[in-house]
Amino acid sequence: MNKDTTCDDFLGGKLRIFQPRKGYRAGVDPVLLAASIAARSGQTVLELGCGVGVASLCLWARVPGVMVTGVELQEEYAALARENALVNNADFTVVQSDLRQLPADLRQKRFDHVIMNPPYFDRASSVAAKDAGRDVALAGDTPLADWLDIGARRVGPRGYLTIIQRMERLPEVIAALEGRLGAFILRPIAGRAERAPELFLLQARQEGRAAFRMAPTLIMHAGSAHSADKETYTPQVRAILRSGAYLNIGS
Amino acid sequence: MNKDTTCDDFLGGKLRIFQPRKGYRAGVDPVLLAASIAARSGQTVLELGCGVGVASLCLWARVPGVMVTGVELQEEYAALARENALVNNADFTVVQSDLRQLPADLRQKRFDHVIMNPPYFDRASSVAAKDAGRDVALAGDTPLADWLDIGARRVGPRGYLTIIQRMERLPEVIAALEGRLGAFILRPIAGRAERAPELFLLQARQEGRAAFRMAPTLIMHAGSAHSADKETYTPQVRAILRSGAYLNIGS
Repeated sequence: MNKDTTCDDFLGGKLRIFQPRKGYRAGVDPVLLAASIAARSGQTVLELGCGVGVASLCLWARVPGVMVTGVELQEEYAALARENALVNNADFTVVQSDLRQLPADLRQKRFDHVIMNPPYFDRASSVAAKDAGRDVALAGDTPLADWLDIGARRVGPRGYLTIIQRMERLPEVIAALEGRLGAFILRPIAGRAERAPELFLLQARQEGRAAFRMAPTLIMHAGSAHSADKETYTPQVRAILRSGAYLNIGS
Repeated sequence: MNKDTTCDDFLGGKLRIFQPRKGYRAGVDPVLLAASIAARSGQTVLELGCGVGVASLCLWARVPGVMVTGVELQEEYAALARENALVNNADFTVVQSDLRQLPADLRQKRFDHVIMNPPYFDRASSVAAKDAGRDVALAGDTPLADWLDIGARRVGPRGYLTIIQRMERLPEVIAALEGRLGAFILRPIAGRAERAPELFLLQARQEGRAAFRMAPTLIMHAGSAHSADKETYTPQVRAILRSGAYLNIGS
């Protein structure tokens, strides 16, 4: 193991993930994203901007027989994602590419599920992070509308696109997907029950006809104050993070 | 009192409201809308589609010195709204007009607050109600985008537009206001804590620069089952409905 790399357990040790010691480090967000995907064995999944592969690998760990492809712009992260696929013996193919210039074979494929955890901050209105790799992961040069446009094109018939993103960007996300996909389900995510939700999961379906709906907010922590001494995750979130449980996005 | 009309108490008896026995009858929604408006004495308010005036009168009852104008298409409802203004001795002016053909003097005014509780159902995809007046109130012929367009034009500098609407129409509402107003605050409204929110309040501000945000969901009823025998409103909602309390839309 490279001294600039750490090896961390995910899903209570089901996965071992190498990631840069500095730079962008995966938190709970890609784990929640993976938990919300109702994939079945034999289905195909495309992750845009997979980083070191946490979301893809979490999904693969929960759904045996799923075939996952990840696209990652940054060479260092793509290399770690490949290493993580090997170490975990996962059916996870990593393509190093700019989203906007996908290789021809990927542009000809459509997937049962397209998933993404794009940078949360808008390049135009944020301060760059010191670490270059971390900066691309946090803000990036690809506009959010492009992520969604490229993702929507890769969703197969009756397939799903699912994104996790900061709440303040909800209007952009809806605007980019409206009229292209349907059956939107929005799942707000809040740190605590009484707090404003700061993140959301949004799922939309190719050819979906159902009306937009909002599911009850997913609450991360129990109680009203954060205790540094003990884990305060709600039972539902603990089951997702520690045991790789499925999260029904709609209920 | 006409036999086709009832007289109902609102805000724990602070208001007496005449409304048609059949036809569209005001529920809690206009009361919640009024509760969420942070108007001050001396400010002007325009309600589009005021019906018999419940939202306007609730706001007037909470904020002394506010000057409220209501626009209502249907003559019978406009007449009852005027009667309700008189009976409650309120500073509430009712204009009978199609929203899309407002009188010239209204088209020249801008307001500190524009409020609306437009029909929840889309004319194109719903079955007409038997009662004609109720049908216009439930579905109407004016597209939701027109309500929002007309409302946004009437909001003065730094003024607010606030709407209560069914959750499934959130994308339409955001699309109609994006780029015209800013500082969106979305407040989902759910019957119970574990239920999907079926309504929302959305407030946006003229010249608002703040990012979109979602406030914690307003929960209507306590507990997990509806009891027919006793009132189950949460304390916050009870204070709004029975005492005319203010609802901070953002927290």
